[in-house]
Amino acid sequence: MEIRGAGKIARTGARGLKLTAEKSSAGNTEEFLKELKEVSDILLGTRPTAISLANSLRFVTKDIESLSETEDLPDLKKRVISRAEEFVELSEKARERIGEIGSRRISDGDTIMTHCHSTNALSVIKTAFNQGKDIRVIACEARPRQQGFITARELMESNIPTTLIVDSAARYFMKDVDKVIVGADSIAANGAVVNKIGTSQIALTAYEARVVFFVAAESYKFHPQTLVGRLVEIEERDPKEVADPSKLPNVEIRNPAFDVTPAEYIDLIITERGIIPPEAAYEILREHFELGPESEIF
Amino acid sequence: MEIRGAGKIARTGARGLKLTAEKSSAGNTEEFLKELKEVSDILLGTRPTAISLANSLRFVTKDIESLSETEDLPDLKKRVISRAEEFVELSEKARERIGEIGSRRISDGDTIMTHCHSTNALSVIKTAFNQGKDIRVIACEARPRQQGFITARELMESNIPTTLIVDSAARYFMKDVDKVIVGADSIAANGAVVNKIGTSQIALTAYEARVVFFVAAESYKFHPQTLVGRLVEIEERDPKEVADPSKLPNVEIRNPAFDVTPAEYIDLIITERGIIPPEAAYEILREHFELGPESEIF
Amino acid sequence: MEIRGAGKIARTGARGLKLTAEKSSAGNTEEFLKELKEVSDILLGTRPTAISLANSLRFVTKDIESLSETEDLPDLKKRVISRAEEFVELSEKARERIGEIGSRRISDGDTIMTHCHSTNALSVIKTAFNQGKDIRVIACEARPRQQGFITARELMESNIPTTLIVDSAARYFMKDVDKVIVGADSIAANGAVVNKIGTSQIALTAYEARVVFFVAAESYKFHPQTLVGRLVEIEERDPKEVADPSKLPNVEIRNPAFDVTPAEYIDLIITERGIIPPEAAYEILREHFELGPESEIF
Amino acid sequence: MEIRGAGKIARTGARGLKLTAEKSSAGNTEEFLKELKEVSDILLGTRPTAISLANSLRFVTKDIESLSETEDLPDLKKRVISRAEEFVELSEKARERIGEIGSRRISDGDTIMTHCHSTNALSVIKTAFNQGKDIRVIACEARPRQQGFITARELMESNIPTTLIVDSAARYFMKDVDKVIVGADSIAANGAVVNKIGTSQIALTAYEARVVFFVAAESYKFHPQTLVGRLVEIEERDPKEVADPSKLPNVEIRNPAFDVTPAEYIDLIITERGIIPPEAAYEILREHFELGPESEIF
Amino acid sequence: MEIRGAGKIARTGARGLKLTAEKSSAGNTEEFLKELKEVSDILLGTRPTAISLANSLRFVTKDIESLSETEDLPDLKKRVISRAEEFVELSEKARERIGEIGSRRISDGDTIMTHCHSTNALSVIKTAFNQGKDIRVIACEARPRQQGFITARELMESNIPTTLIVDSAARYFMKDVDKVIVGADSIAANGAVVNKIGTSQIALTAYEARVVFFVAAESYKFHPQTLVGRLVEIEERDPKEVADPSKLPNVEIRNPAFDVTPAEYIDLIITERGIIPPEAAYEILREHFELGPESEIF
Amino acid sequence: MEIRGAGKIARTGARGLKLTAEKSSAGNTEEFLKELKEVSDILLGTRPTAISLANSLRFVTKDIESLSETEDLPDLKKRVISRAEEFVELSEKARERIGEIGSRRISDGDTIMTHCHSTNALSVIKTAFNQGKDIRVIACEARPRQQGFITARELMESNIPTTLIVDSAARYFMKDVDKVIVGADSIAANGAVVNKIGTSQIALTAYEARVVFFVAAESYKFHPQTLVGRLVEIEERDPKEVADPSKLPNVEIRNPAFDVTPAEYIDLIITERGIIPPEAAYEILREHFELGPESEIF
Repeated sequence: MEIRGAGKIARTGARGLKLTAEKSSAGNTEEFLKELKEVSDILLGTRPTAISLANSLRFVTKDIESLSETEDLPDLKKRVISRAEEFVELSEKARERIGEIGSRRISDGDTIMTHCHSTNALSVIKTAFNQGKDIRVIACEARPRQQGFITARELMESNIPTTLIVDSAARYFMKDVDKVIVGADSIAANGAVVNKIGTSQIALTAYEARVVFFVAAESYKFHPQTLVGRLVEIEERDPKEVADPSKLPNVEIRNPAFDVTPAEYIDLIITERGIIPPEAAYEILREHFELGPESEIF
Repeated sequence: MEIRGAGKIARTGARGLKLTAEKSSAGNTEEFLKELKEVSDILLGTRPTAISLANSLRFVTKDIESLSETEDLPDLKKRVISRAEEFVELSEKARERIGEIGSRRISDGDTIMTHCHSTNALSVIKTAFNQGKDIRVIACEARPRQQGFITARELMESNIPTTLIVDSAARYFMKDVDKVIVGADSIAANGAVVNKIGTSQIALTAYEARVVFFVAAESYKFHPQTLVGRLVEIEERDPKEVADPSKLPNVEIRNPAFDVTPAEYIDLIITERGIIPPEAAYEILREHFELGPESEIF
Repeated sequence: MEIRGAGKIARTGARGLKLTAEKSSAGNTEEFLKELKEVSDILLGTRPTAISLANSLRFVTKDIESLSETEDLPDLKKRVISRAEEFVELSEKARERIGEIGSRRISDGDTIMTHCHSTNALSVIKTAFNQGKDIRVIACEARPRQQGFITARELMESNIPTTLIVDSAARYFMKDVDKVIVGADSIAANGAVVNKIGTSQIALTAYEARVVFFVAAESYKFHPQTLVGRLVEIEERDPKEVADPSKLPNVEIRNPAFDVTPAEYIDLIITERGIIPPEAAYEILREHFELGPESEIF
Repeated sequence: MEIRGAGKIARTGARGLKLTAEKSSAGNTEEFLKELKEVSDILLGTRPTAISLANSLRFVTKDIESLSETEDLPDLKKRVISRAEEFVELSEKARERIGEIGSRRISDGDTIMTHCHSTNALSVIKTAFNQGKDIRVIACEARPRQQGFITARELMESNIPTTLIVDSAARYFMKDVDKVIVGADSIAANGAVVNKIGTSQIALTAYEARVVFFVAAESYKFHPQTLVGRLVEIEERDPKEVADPSKLPNVEIRNPAFDVTPAEYIDLIITERGIIPPEAAYEILREHFELGPESEIF
Repeated sequence: MEIRGAGKIARTGARGLKLTAEKSSAGNTEEFLKELKEVSDILLGTRPTAISLANSLRFVTKDIESLSETEDLPDLKKRVISRAEEFVELSEKARERIGEIGSRRISDGDTIMTHCHSTNALSVIKTAFNQGKDIRVIACEARPRQQGFITARELMESNIPTTLIVDSAARYFMKDVDKVIVGADSIAANGAVVNKIGTSQIALTAYEARVVFFVAAESYKFHPQTLVGRLVEIEERDPKEVADPSKLPNVEIRNPAFDVTPAEYIDLIITERGIIPPEAAYEILREHFELGPESEIF
Repeated sequence: MEIRGAGKIARTGARGLKLTAEKSSAGNTEEFLKELKEVSDILLGTRPTAISLANSLRFVTKDIESLSETEDLPDLKKRVISRAEEFVELSEKARERIGEIGSRRISDGDTIMTHCHSTNALSVIKTAFNQGKDIRVIACEARPRQQGFITARELMESNIPTTLIVDSAARYFMKDVDKVIVGADSIAANGAVVNKIGTSQIALTAYEARVVFFVAAESYKFHPQTLVGRLVEIEERDPKEVADPSKLPNVEIRNPAFDVTPAEYIDLIITERGIIPPEAAYEILREHFELGPESEIF
């Protein structure tokens, strides 16, 4: 699964630019910028849809173009190296930090619903449990691939009381739930969250029942190109995950991997930089990333 | 599955009372009433939770007690026999009649979502298709038992274009849906509909998207005891239908068979007696059934 | 305009059946029923879409078939005559009665919005004004035919302070409005009201602003065939009413005459029989009209 | 307080008509009807705003006018006497019956909020508690007269765990509440409930939190005149109950005794005849009471 | 019409300050600032309500006061000139840029509703059409001046299939609409949009039907004074545009030119700087404009 | 009461740091920072829950750590002194400034509801009244301590027409209200407002009735620690304020002092820096305060 490695991919990108700066043979700032751009393009070419990669490159090269007008080459190199190191460090501590921040919102006695298998959501749950809070979890199975089984097993191994249900039973159990926590694949400029198929339905159900809905995600999952009108594309996976097509001839089987939860159904997004309301997604994007006409990598 | 046989069970009950009236050796009206009561109790004892059975007995014996004060024994017997025949006839034609009535609400070009496997919902869909309307269906699989596969196969055999999806993708596809049609296990006095787990989630999603939501059900699925405060009990089925417990030791697996869709998410209930708004459920119950202190069978 | 004559058409139908009963040469009840049916069919054939006509015939012939089994010919004739007379009387007093009942819901100081030109809505407004209540009216023009101008003129002649606005300014002025009152073309079994295009938009705007929304309509505007799934058809009128097509070549011009206001945006329906919540439309229909498989005229 | 005696007043009215029938010296049915009308007018004159009284008279004299055309004098008298006895019996058992019916909707472990002091609401709570259900109550004080203190004391004497709060803390505690139960002063044709000031605010808060909201009231609290457009008048009580006016010179002090809770915030109304959704209020009124042009007492 | 020239007015203002800087005879920075202030005041005096003008002046003079403490006169002049040129360039490309950004949100097969005549909205529509997307447009006429006719004609000339309707038919056709796009007269700090009368009604209708609602507007239409509590004033135009007053003596005719659409009904605002959610309006204002006690022009 | 002194406490903190800078005997920047930290800790220790104090310290020491790397000791001291003076000045003028800004949103003829006793809310009301606007106020009493009596008396002394009501009558009077204005105890990162118990209920009621809801509060009431997941704790006060426990033995009496109004029920927050929508709370916090891992005081 792509998502689990989102952090690793992002760090690899940052390290690639760091190495470029360390080994650079550029004679002037202009040449150095050209080098950075070339390496960035190569890296992006390997994983064109990985938001975390594009974001790590943007983070490292932030302001580099305008700075190149006033700073000299060694300073520019130093900046790229230190920004890359900062990113790697932030990223490596992100999950733990999300656990710390998010766990403050978990109360003793809470029943928490989660969907699919999100390491960030589990970080919040386990941190709260390790603080001695008496909590229990309801895990939705997440058809078709049933990653909820992995979640249930992992929670069980941490001795956290867990109930497994089918996805369509989420509303039935919502009356017993205090909080819902899920992860995110990416987050748009308007605060909408792209995550595993079924997430938006659980969010709607939580909203109906006035149950608090949290998303736990690293800040490099915010998607800058949504600022200029691009939509996050939803991948459709192999129909065979849903049913054996040979047994249902002529029946079309559709298997979208993700759906979009609108901001109005999300209470808070827990990032490693703090808790933000989804309405502040636009600000996060403006603050952390350059916004040019096409949101290009510098 | 209990539901599919709801009509058959009900007709058997009516026929039981008809036979009682035909073979009765009662010497007076009082004895005849006693006979009817005894047979009713025996029949109810075999299927204590079958609403359709209780309702067919109520239909046949409607007003019988008060009529016994003014009418003589042969007339009473005649009444029981004719009410029983009326019920059987109504019941046998109900599905077809629901198809006719409901199909008038289906327009050419409609995309219809359905859940699980409901013969009444399929009657509406097929009747509309046979009228030459160009329709297509999105069928939710209905985990854990995946009766949606049966639905998809049945529609495919009728040459109705069909798409099969997992339950948690219902909201993803709702933007393409014009109408949702589902069946019902029973209907409460306040218009709430008890049906296969997941129905209420689809109804909520349809409500959010302003998609029309229809329930197709025979009038003997209305549940008179909800008038005096009783709740419809939700059966929990074998956890093994959801997952192999041996592979998830210590994880609790819950498997409720039904959920409750509130009246506010339902646009219309299509019965063999006409289309009623869910708010009129109370009236249907008052009109068709005796309402004594305990809604007893006379 | 069809609507204004709804009452007159209905009364003509009732009188037609009365005459049939008075002049009938039928030798037995069966022949009499046949006569009634024939006359009904002829009358309906002249105005197939006039709900008020079908309803007046249904009112007059209510229960006639079952009564024909127990009553003799003179009694049946008498019944038809008296039901016809009852209908005519009810109908003739309906507007005045609606004015009386509705005016009780108008308070001193109220600002009332109305749309298009409805004699029933104006009856409520004028009756309240004549009771000495200090009220003012905001009239929407009702493009394309601008019948709101007629309403404004009529109110002005009654010395009721009136403001005329374009239809799209309804929301702008809603903050000053206490109540909205409109008429109806017909009312469906689920309480939805069919009325002049734009009504549903005003109702939505009133609902948003928590302004009370009344419909004033005679009880014979309830539409029984909606009980068996038929939809009220919306007529499209001549595009030239909207714009001169020759000046907009290739532009399609659409001109639907009516729209449908859902029951949830309507607070009360004022009829000559009392004030009913829209949810009770189903009951009104069941109480006043026979409900056969096709809601035929007996 | 007027409300507590609502049942007693109603029964007195029914007994008055019974006595009239027993002692009547009327020579024919016409005279008897005149007698009944005179006695009714006298009784109504003593308590013109008591809905329960008007309703008991309407119940006893239901259909009496049309029956007088076909039945003879002794039968008419018998009918009045038996209807009066039926009313008295129904009324006397109503509170207990409401307790029985309502308690079926209370689950083990429920936290129930109540407002002011309602004997019907307490009947539901105590019956559920006596059935062995583990429940607790949150009582709002009901400023200005703080009848919530009486409720708290009464519950405490029944050993039901009770928490007392100020009215403005209702929303703060709503997250802990499973059900709200209140009484009613009267119920309008559209299902709106008139009850102690503050009730509508608690209902709104419950609606926001998706907490179930019950009203417990005898069927003779339904208000027939709202069918013909009359509004229930809201009494304003002595400002001194709120504050000492001499200490707040020039400050206007307002003290309305009741407010109106709209039907959409009410889940169910528990009556001695069964549980009805508020949308069925219109039907209850039509079924139990004559509806003439002015809803007069026959 | 004022609105169409909003960009031209803004650019004229920027050019005025540029000229001032170029021709300035100021002996020191203080004098230069005084000059700028005087020219600004004169320009503002000519069009006191033109937001675009005030905003262009604010853009050009941003930070000028604080910079005057550290920078020398030539640098200050240079800054004013370059800011002015930047503004002019941004403004001239804004419509095209809005078309590019907005068109990414238009999908093949979309039906788009628009209101009145907005060059920015049309830029989005035409750009999408020119990208080969198969789209059709529903244009509301925008009574009283019916600028929708201009829109229909312009679209027709671009060969984009177009339907023209009266304003009150917007809700009737909303079920066929995928997206609504309108322009803006100005945008408040809380994201509310001031636009042609009727816009808020269409937005509400779109919100009800879950249809996406876009506003297309240049960033200089954001209204900084709403940050300090000022409300945008709504102009009322000549009543004769609505109806001939001589034919409706004593009838008041009201003709407000604009209304206010609250942020909650707006999905996204398409600006030349990117797509922002309306909740981010406050940030845009803070980022682009100085916020002093009275939001004065520096 | 803590709240009234919020400004005074904050200014004392700022002055404490100013004094520290003035009297500092630190030999280098590092020692100076240590001094500031020690004084901050001492001050915070005296009032650990006072948000205004923590915020004033954060304001004064903003960026001090990073600046200490580039600036020398005298400059650092100067900065602390000037930031402290700036804070004191801002704080002292805040109430007056809030009155000025907020009063622009009050229209002639407005009826304003307020709750409890807030000097900022009263500043808005009195400023509007002194501008000659004809306004009247409805004051809720705010049980248990009835500070609404103080509000009523204060308004009366300013000759502003005032009505006093019990808290549970707020919804009854909401139909007459144009705007609600309340103060705040603190404001969370997601725009939620902590204020006197009952505030959230009034806000909900205003939201239901589409009445505009304003919060008037100084910017130093924004609560930075909510950014990292901490919840604002709600104090419970002495039960004796509610009722005499000796008269209600065994009854639990609860007396929470504050409740939380969610951002969606708040239209605008009036601060001394301008009017912000609650969704911008996050931005205010980010702009004014440092956000470190634990939001420590530098």
